[in-house]
Amino acid sequence: MNGTAKTRPQPAQRVAQQPDDVWSIVNDAASKSPIQPVVNMGQGFFGYNPPDFLLDAAKEALNRVDANQYSPTKGRINLRRAIATHYSPSLEREINPESEVIITTGANEGILSAFMAFIEEGDEVIVFEPFFDQYISNIQMAGGTVKYVPLIPPARGDVETSTSGDWSIDVDKLEGAFSSRTRMLVLNSPHNPVGKVFSTEELTLIGNLCVKNNTIIIADDVYDALTYVPSKRMATISPEIWNLTLTVGSSGKTFYATGWRIGFLIGPDDLIKYVAAAHMRICYSSPSPLQEACAVGYPMATKLGFWKTCKDDMQSKIKRFVQVFEELGLPYSAPQGGYFVLANFSRVKIPDDYEFPPHVACRPKDFKLCWFFIVELGIAAIPPSEFYLPENAHVAENYLRFAVCKEDAVLEKAKEKLRGLTKYIV
Amino acid sequence: MNGTAKTRPQPAQRVAQQPDDVWSIVNDAASKSPIQPVVNMGQGFFGYNPPDFLLDAAKEALNRVDANQYSPTKGRINLRRAIATHYSPSLEREINPESEVIITTGANEGILSAFMAFIEEGDEVIVFEPFFDQYISNIQMAGGTVKYVPLIPPARGDVETSTSGDWSIDVDKLEGAFSSRTRMLVLNSPHNPVGKVFSTEELTLIGNLCVKNNTIIIADDVYDALTYVPSKRMATISPEIWNLTLTVGSSGKTFYATGWRIGFLIGPDDLIKYVAAAHMRICYSSPSPLQEACAVGYPMATKLGFWKTCKDDMQSKIKRFVQVFEELGLPYSAPQGGYFVLANFSRVKIPDDYEFPPHVACRPKDFKLCWFFIVELGIAAIPPSEFYLPENAHVAENYLRFAVCKEDAVLEKAKEKLRGLTKYIV
Repeated sequence: MNGTAKTRPQPAQRVAQQPDDVWSIVNDAASKSPIQPVVNMGQGFFGYNPPDFLLDAAKEALNRVDANQYSPTKGRINLRRAIATHYSPSLEREINPESEVIITTGANEGILSAFMAFIEEGDEVIVFEPFFDQYISNIQMAGGTVKYVPLIPPARGDVETSTSGDWSIDVDKLEGAFSSRTRMLVLNSPHNPVGKVFSTEELTLIGNLCVKNNTIIIADDVYDALTYVPSKRMATISPEIWNLTLTVGSSGKTFYATGWRIGFLIGPDDLIKYVAAAHMRICYSSPSPLQEACAVGYPMATKLGFWKTCKDDMQSKIKRFVQVFEELGLPYSAPQGGYFVLANFSRVKIPDDYEFPPHVACRPKDFKLCWFFIVELGIAAIPPSEFYLPENAHVAENYLRFAVCKEDAVLEKAKEKLRGLTKYIV
Repeated sequence: MNGTAKTRPQPAQRVAQQPDDVWSIVNDAASKSPIQPVVNMGQGFFGYNPPDFLLDAAKEALNRVDANQYSPTKGRINLRRAIATHYSPSLEREINPESEVIITTGANEGILSAFMAFIEEGDEVIVFEPFFDQYISNIQMAGGTVKYVPLIPPARGDVETSTSGDWSIDVDKLEGAFSSRTRMLVLNSPHNPVGKVFSTEELTLIGNLCVKNNTIIIADDVYDALTYVPSKRMATISPEIWNLTLTVGSSGKTFYATGWRIGFLIGPDDLIKYVAAAHMRICYSSPSPLQEACAVGYPMATKLGFWKTCKDDMQSKIKRFVQVFEELGLPYSAPQGGYFVLANFSRVKIPDDYEFPPHVACRPKDFKLCWFFIVELGIAAIPPSEFYLPENAHVAENYLRFAVCKEDAVLEKAKEKLRGLTKYIV
């Protein structure tokens, strides 16, 4: 295309590496599968619509002149007030909507804004493994270095069903991860992909280490509406921990609207103001009519009993789906929160002569399972090695992650596909 | 609030400086003005709603399950196709929606994604002065250094009305701004705040310098739907220039919906793919239902004659508004594009004993005019010194920027306020 002899412009290092990511492998396999359509249990988008009260509020907001124009950088005051009201009880303090809440363009951009606000070149951020992959690129974009602390899978996870609470922290590695350059720590609870809800004891341990090291905590609570066990929030453990904690939420995940890109951070005003300064430089402001809709959504959800309904519905989906693993005698990790189920396929034997394309053959077993499931069974799930460093990828290579936030009919189809595994189980 | 003796976490350098920006000064003045409400001609948001065909399309999209969930990082294919179709004629080539278009979360985040895709620490980016302020922080966030090239105001701008085309490039300074570290150049046409539409000769001069220096061009064409003079796009000047040009557009600005946060970049596939990689790390994807609405919006706008209507309407607003300057005998710069009018107040004499707060008293004359207009006349406009380096702030200190994208009744109110200037004109 270039008519001259000039070299083409080269990308910056931060975007230069584009390995085959999990989605390109999934899409490649799906296009090659003889079984069509492939049942997609991979990505965590909802297979059904947000509640009507949210959609109606969005449609009404679209009629308002101001709700179609720029919002303030910190977010529309109606939504900041609704979030402050909704989160004050579980944060065990009166949240100030003017200074302690900022609306961001999805939780993702909110977390990036927090890294951009506090990380300088060479600063370190502690992240638990397995991790949500965007954390890593976001930390690196701010110039930071990631320090990984593994979650230890249940010892007997290959042979018996456990709960996601059985995944445990490697305390020695956590303590050893702090250094004089440690500036932030990210904790995701309920956890993706594990489904673990961290206990008060675990939060206290992690939080106190952060206080000792004056480390800002990103409490990524985006799955908080789907918590199936009693739990506290990190920010409530002590006043010293509140002082260092940015609690992250997602209206999109909460209201089944992952495409709306409405997230938020709650925390002490002298941290939030710098997150706002970064957010202003990144996105300036977030989508206005969808903010107004969410502002209506929180009180309506409370009034209409949506919080209980959404938990009950998701637990019933989890129960419906894992029944196939009970039937097949395959162990899984029952989630304490969220909408992901990790199932263990150590008992599944892929035929020795099965041919994988080179970009799959070089990856851990879960990538091979992922390919095999799509092509031979017609069902897509996510290999959790994607959420580990290459050197630790073996830890979870017997697992696949299934997103159950789909219609019941889809779950039944998925189960039917999985029954095709029978002949490969040893 | 912090119960311990620990120092509070300090912000990263990139967000540490928070001077009184223009909006905080405007808001401060507005809260102190005895004349309420203040007529806001400052920020460029629309005072009226997007067209019904766009709002109806958004409401319909909200009913669709897929249109409420995550979009692909590169944007929804319906919108990429609509933009490719709409822009192919003015870009004088068949745009490939699969590989040559990316949807971003507003043009702002799109431009940031472009800087993040190509700028390494110490790389240089050429920006014309006056500049849209977000360029600067976005370049710096990517580690880049800004090289400024001034636009020269009309020589007789203080005494007679001119057109925005009379603002000219300092060619020597432009040539001198290129170095071995130059990676990108930003050109905004139609220009904010000047209203200038760069001529084919100017585009050729700038573009050829970029080709000579293998410099990527950000052609920030976000006001392109409002171009009142014949013009070409930078990307059409030559195949070599196309190869280096990322054309930026804004569905939000085009459809009077600045709060929707839908922008896009169009360019050669081997540049767009790296912008997409950066965009994925920043926002992951952009608001889905609003993308679907814009996808319907472009063909409907063509079908319903919206493109002519929106130009006619805005030109009629400009004409209606500048009439007050004719009446007062004050010169202005008639815009060739966009919705900003720069008026020249060198003939306005603020009383010598007028007291400004210290954070205004230390700024150039236009900041003082801004304060005085809000407090004494009840009308807000933007001081263009905000878009200059401090050392060049004097260049435009006799001007104020008025956004005319407001209802006619508001424009008439603004004119009435401005008539209060009579006694201060010398």
